[in-house]
Amino acid sequence: MVSVVNFAVGKELLIGRTMNTNAYWIGGRLYKMGGMLDRILTVTDSLEEISSGIKELLALHPDFIIVVGGLGPTPDDMTLKGIALGLGRKLKFNEDAARMIKEHLEKAGRVFELTPQRKKMATLPEGGTPLTNDVGTAPGVRLTAGKGTVVYCLPGVPREMRNIFTNFAEKEIREKLGEMHIAKVTLKFSGVFEAALAPSIEEALKMHPEAYIKSHPRGLKAGVPNLELDVTVTSRDKRKARSAYSELLSFLTRRISELGGTVTAKREAIR
Amino acid sequence: MVSVVNFAVGKELLIGRTMNTNAYWIGGRLYKMGGMLDRILTVTDSLEEISSGIKELLALHPDFIIVVGGLGPTPDDMTLKGIALGLGRKLKFNEDAARMIKEHLEKAGRVFELTPQRKKMATLPEGGTPLTNDVGTAPGVRLTAGKGTVVYCLPGVPREMRNIFTNFAEKEIREKLGEMHIAKVTLKFSGVFEAALAPSIEEALKMHPEAYIKSHPRGLKAGVPNLELDVTVTSRDKRKARSAYSELLSFLTRRISELGGTVTAKREAIR
Repeated sequence: MVSVVNFAVGKELLIGRTMNTNAYWIGGRLYKMGGMLDRILTVTDSLEEISSGIKELLALHPDFIIVVGGLGPTPDDMTLKGIALGLGRKLKFNEDAARMIKEHLEKAGRVFELTPQRKKMATLPEGGTPLTNDVGTAPGVRLTAGKGTVVYCLPGVPREMRNIFTNFAEKEIREKLGEMHIAKVTLKFSGVFEAALAPSIEEALKMHPEAYIKSHPRGLKAGVPNLELDVTVTSRDKRKARSAYSELLSFLTRRISELGGTVTAKREAIR
Repeated sequence: MVSVVNFAVGKELLIGRTMNTNAYWIGGRLYKMGGMLDRILTVTDSLEEISSGIKELLALHPDFIIVVGGLGPTPDDMTLKGIALGLGRKLKFNEDAARMIKEHLEKAGRVFELTPQRKKMATLPEGGTPLTNDVGTAPGVRLTAGKGTVVYCLPGVPREMRNIFTNFAEKEIREKLGEMHIAKVTLKFSGVFEAALAPSIEEALKMHPEAYIKSHPRGLKAGVPNLELDVTVTSRDKRKARSAYSELLSFLTRRISELGGTVTAKREAIR
């Protein structure tokens, strides 16, 4: 397996100001590729929190750490400094990064002047490579640390994060993952309480421990419970993924019906 | 300061299935009270991840750990077992918890039978106290660990989490916080680039390092940048909070106008 963790930096995520849609998006994106986000750690804009957070995540020896937020021009944008501190590296002005900022501003018809704020955005932890941001000013950064962990630092503005993630991080992760096959379904059904279905899920997981099977209670309507059930099988082996999937789907559908439930909707995706 | 961290458990949060609205809600709720969430750690439903996660968070010696998710009846609901493992405690069937489950089911007109799934929901780490869930089956749990950290375990279903959080955790945190005064504003303005405002924010933070001042770029409209600026001052001292707030608000409003910007909206909240 390829292990990926997300390090989210930003006080706005901790005070109910901004919903962490970035972690949600990255998680979904990886899962669709056949990978998975193992953890999300969210900390505030403080050098101490950023530097200790990166050290804690590196100690898990993941293949990738996706750092998001705090690359901008304002004083609370201190992610690169915090990462450098955590890794025990110096910060160094990077000519390529400055050129990227200049090109972005000129394309937008603005005058480039190397203000302290722009200089900061072009000052990276030693060993860092700047990554072009097609839709904003601050470049992303790629560096390696620890025992071969690749660290990507991306801006927190969602469209900038997605731009750099897709163009750089995703490509590298996909290469490391190899081709993955995924078969999944969400069944909506009513008339069975979650606790009543639980033993069948347990049985299904004994048949295929590699599968992901999860029920989500969706409330009662006139005393009748509504649920959703997710079943996902991921494998490098296409045939294996499909046969495990079919087996689980027919087993669970049968059980729901035996327990008196009615499936009302089925959303499948097989690749 | 009172330190609070959030430990979110659930694979659905890591694969883009469920947005972590619970962390967002808890963060906002604490911030309105004058407190703050220091960290959010999200892990998957695995005994190893849950037990190591709780140990890592306890090592920070926070006043409160709010654990959310994984208290239900299905096999992947393993939070209490994981917490017990992490704390080196035994799991013990709790009569009070079983009574709460029984009462909830009977109120809903359902028959109570102590199935293995219900027994699991009533089996708590030793030293844990069950907390009434007014809107669902699984009780919450309160326990103390480490150097006086209070751990609350809440279900992941948002309305159940909010019910138990408000009735129990919030009360205890509020007591520890004491009365807090908050003055805050969000200014919407256009015509100033974030990088141009950055030095003024830096100056403002030098005047009041205790304040929270953060700009959020909201995109360009016809080449003109739109931004939002959050300014929050929190203090036990009402007069201090208000005077720092007024000073910052007038300073930053003046600067925006000097930089050629126009404030288009202002949302204030003073308590």
